[in-house]
Amino acid sequence: MQTIQSTSYPVLFQENGYNTLNDFIKSKAFKTVFILVDENTHEHCLPILQQEITADVVFEVIEIESGEVNKNLGTCMSVWHALTDLGADRKSLLINIGGGVITDMGGFVASTYKRGIQFINIPTTLLSMVDASVGGKTGVDLGVLKNQIGLFADPEMVIIDPLYLKTLSEKEITSGMAEIIKYGLTYDASLWKQFTDETKEVDLVGMIHRSIEIKNEVVLEDRLEANLRKILNYGHTIGHAVESHFLESDDKETLTHGQAIALGMITEAYISSKLFNFPLSDLEIIKTTITRIFGKVPVLKTDYPAVIDLMKHDKKNVNGQVNFVLLESIETCKIDCKVSVDLIQESLDYYLL
Amino acid sequence: MQTIQSTSYPVLFQENGYNTLNDFIKSKAFKTVFILVDENTHEHCLPILQQEITADVVFEVIEIESGEVNKNLGTCMSVWHALTDLGADRKSLLINIGGGVITDMGGFVASTYKRGIQFINIPTTLLSMVDASVGGKTGVDLGVLKNQIGLFADPEMVIIDPLYLKTLSEKEITSGMAEIIKYGLTYDASLWKQFTDETKEVDLVGMIHRSIEIKNEVVLEDRLEANLRKILNYGHTIGHAVESHFLESDDKETLTHGQAIALGMITEAYISSKLFNFPLSDLEIIKTTITRIFGKVPVLKTDYPAVIDLMKHDKKNVNGQVNFVLLESIETCKIDCKVSVDLIQESLDYYLL
Repeated sequence: MQTIQSTSYPVLFQENGYNTLNDFIKSKAFKTVFILVDENTHEHCLPILQQEITADVVFEVIEIESGEVNKNLGTCMSVWHALTDLGADRKSLLINIGGGVITDMGGFVASTYKRGIQFINIPTTLLSMVDASVGGKTGVDLGVLKNQIGLFADPEMVIIDPLYLKTLSEKEITSGMAEIIKYGLTYDASLWKQFTDETKEVDLVGMIHRSIEIKNEVVLEDRLEANLRKILNYGHTIGHAVESHFLESDDKETLTHGQAIALGMITEAYISSKLFNFPLSDLEIIKTTITRIFGKVPVLKTDYPAVIDLMKHDKKNVNGQVNFVLLESIETCKIDCKVSVDLIQESLDYYLL
Repeated sequence: MQTIQSTSYPVLFQENGYNTLNDFIKSKAFKTVFILVDENTHEHCLPILQQEITADVVFEVIEIESGEVNKNLGTCMSVWHALTDLGADRKSLLINIGGGVITDMGGFVASTYKRGIQFINIPTTLLSMVDASVGGKTGVDLGVLKNQIGLFADPEMVIIDPLYLKTLSEKEITSGMAEIIKYGLTYDASLWKQFTDETKEVDLVGMIHRSIEIKNEVVLEDRLEANLRKILNYGHTIGHAVESHFLESDDKETLTHGQAIALGMITEAYISSKLFNFPLSDLEIIKTTITRIFGKVPVLKTDYPAVIDLMKHDKKNVNGQVNFVLLESIETCKIDCKVSVDLIQESLDYYLL
């Protein structure tokens, strides 16, 4: 697979990635490389990586507990302390190997440790490969508010190796599909078509490459999310709020990010049909296709007020206005759309139908 | 006083600063401006600022407890939560009004809140005026390690108004003098001469302007501290370690930053005389002059091991090597100097003589 050049760094695939990594470690003469993992990537992914690193270097592995609930400043503190105790200095390198929690948090930890050290991301989940590989977003949650604390910071490189996907459950693979669907709906109808046409065989590696390519095109044009980049938030306004609500409710099972965004894409397509005449035929296909893949999130009418309240804290809001990305048609987005609370509730009713 | 243009923003003096601030608030159409203060600047400095802001805007004041012991992530969390609760969004503005704790921490909080909001610094202590006005360093302490967590981020502008100095104790004014002396010793002999010549009247405002000008020249040439900027660490290798040690010792009184750096400048001048033949006559003048202004820090021989241990955690170190900035002569520095533990101890003995 061809290398994708992002803002200041390359996204490298497989062998090509490892070769570049080895050259990088040698050229910078690192004696020690710090590696951030969780218990899963420690067991399943780190051995793969270690086999590929031929450079003569000592690994110091820092393990944190997996899961979005640990993506917070408390965990950052423990990593900063570990780096300090292990003697990491301003010229050290941190390799983050894991899902979005590890790469988002590891990027934040690295870029704020002693005012910033170099880091490399190796996403091991489908979601983090297609979502977190480019864009430079790092951060952690503040209470239930996702990515409330963070900054824009670029890794030295990103390495994509589909081999890591073999360590994932089917549920995790499916979760990542939601973002790929999003790229299809907002940017590339032919990518979307691969989901609606059940007869076609799924080319997962090709989809990953195309998704990163799309995100990269969008990010290169609009890194700071003034305009175009906002389309990447399609499905995420309602999706994030539902995800946060389920996370903070003791009596609810935590959703995968994909399940939440799946719900968000259906409800926001419904709103699009009401406000921008998004074709009803496409709306029905979206609902059918996405529900076939993700099933239905057990959201209740009694959850609506909490979900709507959470939307008000979305980072995308300015002056207290909730901003939606909506669809005029497949591939054609409208950004900064205001939506009434009534219509949001109606869209959730439609989802539950 | 003339405006000093730094990397991406101006350092503005007095009336000129407030006029620019008012224009800025109007041009960006802020409805709310968030202001970070501590209990001291809330009482003594905020009223001065509020009188100067004529723009039609609501102030939301966030108060934290003063003092270096509060320059930590726990305090950041409380400010991030306050910003969230008060509805600050990505386009909000935070004005930090206070000493280095407020401007360093406020800059860090702003540049990591929702991946970065705009901020303005109004330093109100002599130390923060001459030290923190330019350079873009933001951060907080991690345990006893000063500024271990942070990043480089520029404010929109910095406003200097010597009127705020009238709210300070003499001890605080003196503390700030240490940094001005440092600029003299490392960069401008005529500035240093203003301290050795007791017959001359002190032109404080002129010294502030000249100090910021010097720091700005250094920072513009070397923002990321690859070379020249390191000279700003003169007196800080031993000074910071002693400061940290006193902070973490229950039985010791906390030092002002100036007292610690005063000790650092004397001991590091002594080391300079041993390693680079820094003139003994100048060494004696440095010791006499600085001791006259700052008195003597009650460091004990039994403190030496802890102080030396703390130096090993200095951010300036690479590969575990403690790096000193030393003097060949007034205005002529040597960077990246290695110093033996024995010589460090000897320099402390000389200080205590």
